[in-house]
Amino acid sequence: MSNETSSGSGAAGRTASREIRLASRPEGWPTEENFELVEVGVPAPGEGEVLVRNRFMSVDPYMRGRMNDTESYVPPFELGRPLDGGAVGEVVESRAPGLAAGDLVLHGYGWREYALVRADQARKIEEIPGVPLSAYLGVLGMPGLTAYVGLLDIAAFKEGDAVFVSGAAGAVGSLVGQIARLKGASRVVGSAGSQEKIAYLTGKLGFDAAFNYKTAPVRRQLAQVAPDGIDVYFDNVGGEHLEAALDALKTYGRVAMCGAISVYNAAGPVPGPSNLFLAVGKRLTLRGFIVGDHYDRMTDMIREVGAWLRDGEITFEETVVDGLENSPRAFIDMLAGANTGKMLVRLAR
Amino acid sequence: MSNETSSGSGAAGRTASREIRLASRPEGWPTEENFELVEVGVPAPGEGEVLVRNRFMSVDPYMRGRMNDTESYVPPFELGRPLDGGAVGEVVESRAPGLAAGDLVLHGYGWREYALVRADQARKIEEIPGVPLSAYLGVLGMPGLTAYVGLLDIAAFKEGDAVFVSGAAGAVGSLVGQIARLKGASRVVGSAGSQEKIAYLTGKLGFDAAFNYKTAPVRRQLAQVAPDGIDVYFDNVGGEHLEAALDALKTYGRVAMCGAISVYNAAGPVPGPSNLFLAVGKRLTLRGFIVGDHYDRMTDMIREVGAWLRDGEITFEETVVDGLENSPRAFIDMLAGANTGKMLVRLAR
Repeated sequence: MSNETSSGSGAAGRTASREIRLASRPEGWPTEENFELVEVGVPAPGEGEVLVRNRFMSVDPYMRGRMNDTESYVPPFELGRPLDGGAVGEVVESRAPGLAAGDLVLHGYGWREYALVRADQARKIEEIPGVPLSAYLGVLGMPGLTAYVGLLDIAAFKEGDAVFVSGAAGAVGSLVGQIARLKGASRVVGSAGSQEKIAYLTGKLGFDAAFNYKTAPVRRQLAQVAPDGIDVYFDNVGGEHLEAALDALKTYGRVAMCGAISVYNAAGPVPGPSNLFLAVGKRLTLRGFIVGDHYDRMTDMIREVGAWLRDGEITFEETVVDGLENSPRAFIDMLAGANTGKMLVRLAR
Repeated sequence: MSNETSSGSGAAGRTASREIRLASRPEGWPTEENFELVEVGVPAPGEGEVLVRNRFMSVDPYMRGRMNDTESYVPPFELGRPLDGGAVGEVVESRAPGLAAGDLVLHGYGWREYALVRADQARKIEEIPGVPLSAYLGVLGMPGLTAYVGLLDIAAFKEGDAVFVSGAAGAVGSLVGQIARLKGASRVVGSAGSQEKIAYLTGKLGFDAAFNYKTAPVRRQLAQVAPDGIDVYFDNVGGEHLEAALDALKTYGRVAMCGAISVYNAAGPVPGPSNLFLAVGKRLTLRGFIVGDHYDRMTDMIREVGAWLRDGEITFEETVVDGLENSPRAFIDMLAGANTGKMLVRLAR
């Protein structure tokens, strides 16, 4: 963490910042041409605002949805305007009571080196010994809360359940599996897109079994790793995975629908699962959720997951890419599954 | 009801009964060739059994699923054996304490003129003044319970919700709409397959609006009758209707998945809704259910629906076909939507 301590000098003397704007809306998979790196001035905070030098920013699957010009639960990104998203940084100038230069804050203005943030949109955070600051964008942040709420509240996980999670090596999936294990799952299985990730899941993360969805049909592989079926499916990808899970789910099974990477990037409509009607006979519940509805569980999550972290019961990884100029590439790579654990971009040391 | 009183003479003197057997498994839509009418002897009850002369039997969509040779929540019908299903009739001979000749019972051995029933599988019923005996196969029976539980418990209906029900002129759908209205829905809309049924829905049943799904795309028509969206979709059919409902559902909307007629009769896999991913952003809940899990609500349902019936607040219709020999045709016609209200076969007067 020592590389986090030399940036306290603030924006003084710096007049230039950079930001990433949406140059055009992707059709299907995004490319770097959809993004534009622009040099801008460092703004001065108005009354009630702070100027933050960002250290880490997050790239997340949900951002892909915001690049489409379609109504959704969050408004689409605007063309020619900077993108936004979770970031942590250090206050370099404050005109807000309660926040001072040197404070560390979590906020929603990533994709830029310097951010103006209203004080009521910045959450002051403390570094936890042994835990990197970037954890507030991952295991102790939105991905952590997503895993916690999705598994425990949305899928109503209970001790003894067999759990399947897709995108299992990702920021959310890796926590889902570990929380399920720590809460007494009878079996935890996951899927990911490389042999390395599979080894990581069954090794460090303690999954009972995992498979590479790229090497054989999901349906067949899931039946092999969970021959007795599953009670809970935590869905990060949709598509073929959801169809396979519907087959494998036992009576009264539950699906937490968290995301659908396979759909975000499709240029046209993707057929839904042809076996959805199984939900009737098996009395299944499929439930979509948005983590933003569940901030009231943040305290519970930080308490419980924080304790596991301190005790070494839970591990997490990060894939960190350096430099704002590389953030579009990092985002695209994350969509394609190049990351293990949370994908982050470091903007300053 | 006077035509129900002359059958008390029992099986004495009768030695022949008839039953419908499954001759072959339908591929896609069933035909009459899949059924066989067979004359059999009238059996004698063993210890603890009663012999019942059936008066009415039920033909229901779920029976189509049982004609396939696939594992489901109920075992498939066996080839060369009589079908079964809900029936009401009169005990003509009893070797069970608590049941006597002349008693009326509800049981699960339809598709035959005389049935041997174990006393613990027969439920004694009383005729309600002004309500035909067949109501125990409809508004006060399984369809009634299905509508009641699906709307109130599975879809968690609450006052002020806008409700859409497909198959709205059917036994279940017609009750869903009326219960929703009586419980304070802000709007009740339904779909059915003929102009006559549409008139019935918006007339006698008091739906706010209804449309004929055969005349134009469901998505467009649903948007017209429910321009502000829906909170609850009670799904009797699956397929295109479910897809349209996912579009129309508001945030935190709920779907009770009750059946999927469009899927039962498909010879191959039917693509699921291509917009299922909307469940994430809209925080939708889709929940399948089987009425058999919810018998504990039967008393509540009969109390509440029975009171509405007595007060003339609820109406129901029946489509009655006469004669066991016509039951395969009645079943096929019901699948094709020829009935208004519950489809029944009268086996004896």
